[in-house]
Amino acid sequence: MDVRLSWRHATKRYFLVGFIDANLRGASQVFLQNNPVTGLIILVAVCWGAVNAQTPRAAIGAAVGLVVGTATALVLRVPHASVGDGLFGFNPLLTGLAISIYLRPGALMWIYVVIGAVVTTVVTLAIGTVLKTWNVPSLTFPFVLTTWFLLLATYQFAWLRNGALGQPVLPHSLDPRATRVHVTGAFLTPSMLKDVSEVFLIGNWVTGVLILVALAVNSLWAAGAAIAGAVVSTLLALWFGASAGVVAGGLYGFSAVLTAVALGGVFYHPSRRLVLYALFGIVFTVVIQAALGTALAPVGIPALTAPFVFATWLFLLPKRDLVPTAHRELPEHDVIKTR
Amino acid sequence: MDVRLSWRHATKRYFLVGFIDANLRGASQVFLQNNPVTGLIILVAVCWGAVNAQTPRAAIGAAVGLVVGTATALVLRVPHASVGDGLFGFNPLLTGLAISIYLRPGALMWIYVVIGAVVTTVVTLAIGTVLKTWNVPSLTFPFVLTTWFLLLATYQFAWLRNGALGQPVLPHSLDPRATRVHVTGAFLTPSMLKDVSEVFLIGNWVTGVLILVALAVNSLWAAGAAIAGAVVSTLLALWFGASAGVVAGGLYGFSAVLTAVALGGVFYHPSRRLVLYALFGIVFTVVIQAALGTALAPVGIPALTAPFVFATWLFLLPKRDLVPTAHRELPEHDVIKTR
Amino acid sequence: MDVRLSWRHATKRYFLVGFIDANLRGASQVFLQNNPVTGLIILVAVCWGAVNAQTPRAAIGAAVGLVVGTATALVLRVPHASVGDGLFGFNPLLTGLAISIYLRPGALMWIYVVIGAVVTTVVTLAIGTVLKTWNVPSLTFPFVLTTWFLLLATYQFAWLRNGALGQPVLPHSLDPRATRVHVTGAFLTPSMLKDVSEVFLIGNWVTGVLILVALAVNSLWAAGAAIAGAVVSTLLALWFGASAGVVAGGLYGFSAVLTAVALGGVFYHPSRRLVLYALFGIVFTVVIQAALGTALAPVGIPALTAPFVFATWLFLLPKRDLVPTAHRELPEHDVIKTR
Repeated sequence: MDVRLSWRHATKRYFLVGFIDANLRGASQVFLQNNPVTGLIILVAVCWGAVNAQTPRAAIGAAVGLVVGTATALVLRVPHASVGDGLFGFNPLLTGLAISIYLRPGALMWIYVVIGAVVTTVVTLAIGTVLKTWNVPSLTFPFVLTTWFLLLATYQFAWLRNGALGQPVLPHSLDPRATRVHVTGAFLTPSMLKDVSEVFLIGNWVTGVLILVALAVNSLWAAGAAIAGAVVSTLLALWFGASAGVVAGGLYGFSAVLTAVALGGVFYHPSRRLVLYALFGIVFTVVIQAALGTALAPVGIPALTAPFVFATWLFLLPKRDLVPTAHRELPEHDVIKTR
Repeated sequence: MDVRLSWRHATKRYFLVGFIDANLRGASQVFLQNNPVTGLIILVAVCWGAVNAQTPRAAIGAAVGLVVGTATALVLRVPHASVGDGLFGFNPLLTGLAISIYLRPGALMWIYVVIGAVVTTVVTLAIGTVLKTWNVPSLTFPFVLTTWFLLLATYQFAWLRNGALGQPVLPHSLDPRATRVHVTGAFLTPSMLKDVSEVFLIGNWVTGVLILVALAVNSLWAAGAAIAGAVVSTLLALWFGASAGVVAGGLYGFSAVLTAVALGGVFYHPSRRLVLYALFGIVFTVVIQAALGTALAPVGIPALTAPFVFATWLFLLPKRDLVPTAHRELPEHDVIKTR
Repeated sequence: MDVRLSWRHATKRYFLVGFIDANLRGASQVFLQNNPVTGLIILVAVCWGAVNAQTPRAAIGAAVGLVVGTATALVLRVPHASVGDGLFGFNPLLTGLAISIYLRPGALMWIYVVIGAVVTTVVTLAIGTVLKTWNVPSLTFPFVLTTWFLLLATYQFAWLRNGALGQPVLPHSLDPRATRVHVTGAFLTPSMLKDVSEVFLIGNWVTGVLILVALAVNSLWAAGAAIAGAVVSTLLALWFGASAGVVAGGLYGFSAVLTAVALGGVFYHPSRRLVLYALFGIVFTVVIQAALGTALAPVGIPALTAPFVFATWLFLLPKRDLVPTAHRELPEHDVIKTR
């Protein structure tokens, strides 16, 4: 592997190469991977989706968030190993992406993106300090928490208009007619691929395919887990009677895809018992997705990846109680670290 | 005590007897007791109430939750001592009960009950891991958290209709006319007995009497604390001007009853100072009960036993700071364990 | 310093002098100071503001909360050093103040103030136990949590009417016309002084001046940080397009003022890097202020000082990760202690 070796050498010799490497790994860490090639393909996938949705600013927002977040971590003198693994890139990337999608474009919006990215890095350190107590990773919670605050605030600021948030409403029971759909392969396949792309708030099946390729480059197991998460969550949502339009948009599956990758990545020797355990984790992610849809309706903000975070925390925390067990500790270098 | 000894032997020799014992103790742990006879009488009380309310499915839901939860803990290889004490039965019991009361009956509802019971057990382990840090018990929080998610989600699923949840509304100040009532023994006695039965979401004074008998079998002190909790909370709610209909239904007292038993059970040598401390705990439980009534109105879910959990946590956490103190550590075997 | 020495002697010899000293220090701890003279001037400032707003009961509520809270801590046998530093006075002071401002006056209101002050002290111990894990101070969170519960509950109690809370509403985007204002010194100066006085829920620029004097008596640095917090938050809110009326009332700055003092007080050798860090903390406090305005609208309660608490926690928690750093540990005696 000559190329890999010389890249690794270059990242240590030249600051800029190391910085680029950290950012690429940061993009891959959204899916709990640590691989610059995976990150590169993911960034291409995001660009494709953003341009096709005629919101190229979403890709720029993601890039700005990624770079500003990683740079902030360096300024704050976070240990280089963590920064180099991209652990301070993926949350600000998502914050930048979300702000640039949900807010109306403008100069102030870009300042808000930069503020959001800086604060997300601080919040990543804060949440990491708290969660270290139980040896659980922050996942994308720093992004979720910071972005919830940033989005809620826009209702009070006339020059930071949110253009793509739903109007705050009191929740009501779903009209059964909203569930009507012909469940065919032509319906399911793009839905499930959008489950993957919606991790980046993009509803584009090509982006989904590219992300699956990116995952497969680093870990076939992760790609398989992502697909399993998409399949299970989509079928479960349809079975429970979710809105067909929401399922088609991939909005019931993106958190479940991440839960599947996260819980899947913790198992060293997957057994039937542990696959069943992960399955319940995916099922509960879908329940939390629907639940947050209800709970957040009156304040007009989206769930983001909170269902993934909450479900994965609840299913990772019991770890130490399951003895003897086939779990392995969260690995230091190929999956997101606890910090 | 020949019968007790031979029962204990049988629980160790025959798996089925041990499993039944664990489940009966699980039913008693709702009231922080650890006694199979108490559990048996409580289950009879729940059956009586469920049948009289023409919702026998509530009793079946409770039983399914209890058994599935305890079995899940065994499959997850939780230490046998904890399972045997019923510590993995009481939360899923309440989840099964709540789902079968609040949802419209149907095959999918029963699947939801089973999912809920399994997840509640996982959540019990997760919350236990977190709270171990401060040596505080999870109480019924795993039930509350899981059931809140499960109920919120029903608004988004057409085939999981909630039939008995209030419509989401913006809160408004209580009409003073709602407080009108003749406060006589004929009003107070059934109200206070329903304070006890409503722990199981059942408004039936006979169920309340049976539960008090069940408590007395294990601990006269616990039965006395439960009565004190009911009396104080009912009178306080009326004094503050709560809705008379809500007070009559026992809905201001069920969390306070549990707080009284929990705080009362922690005192070894009750002194006047500590009785006063517990009294403030009960008073604040009533305040939180009213507060959650307001806070949860816009999202259309009930407070469940969250007021008990929050108030008891807040009043148990300072324990270590009260020195010298008459507190005893949470006992290992007769009250719920911290895990 | 003869006077200081003899006062210190008197506090140790006579219980009453010691108790008064603890209460005066408690008043100063709202701004994270530990100085009886500062506390005395602050109490005068609150009286002035309360009387001028024709709500003298607000000053009485603050005094009752302060005294009851400190006394409760003594009854609960909290270590004398903490009580003597006023660490059990400032939260109940704020609770008593808030209850007497937001509720309609009456005998039951005063009982509610006393209950609130007692419970706030218990909650201070509880939150302190939890936060000790990460060496972070409780700040004013015990006040915020307890008062949120107390205020939410008033919607359900006919004899505890809230008179000054906004009606619960669904949030909506701000009308740009609400931002119209001539930004002159005549607009900015009183706004910024009210940023300081609104820490005590009082919109009075004289009160603001007096508080700044009180701070300067103990620490010029703290007074300067408070002014910086007011300036930054006011200008930022105007730049983002906040409601001019809300800015003029000092409601965008009071939490930011506290954040500035808290983050400023932690820096030993302030460097440019750390000033920038504090600046982002102030900016994010303003964002959280706006965000809670949206999030709490449907349940009809104010944010209180929660934006200060949340932002300061998030910016203090990373402390241990910033190595090498110019941070100093939270000092034992001149700033609020972690307990």
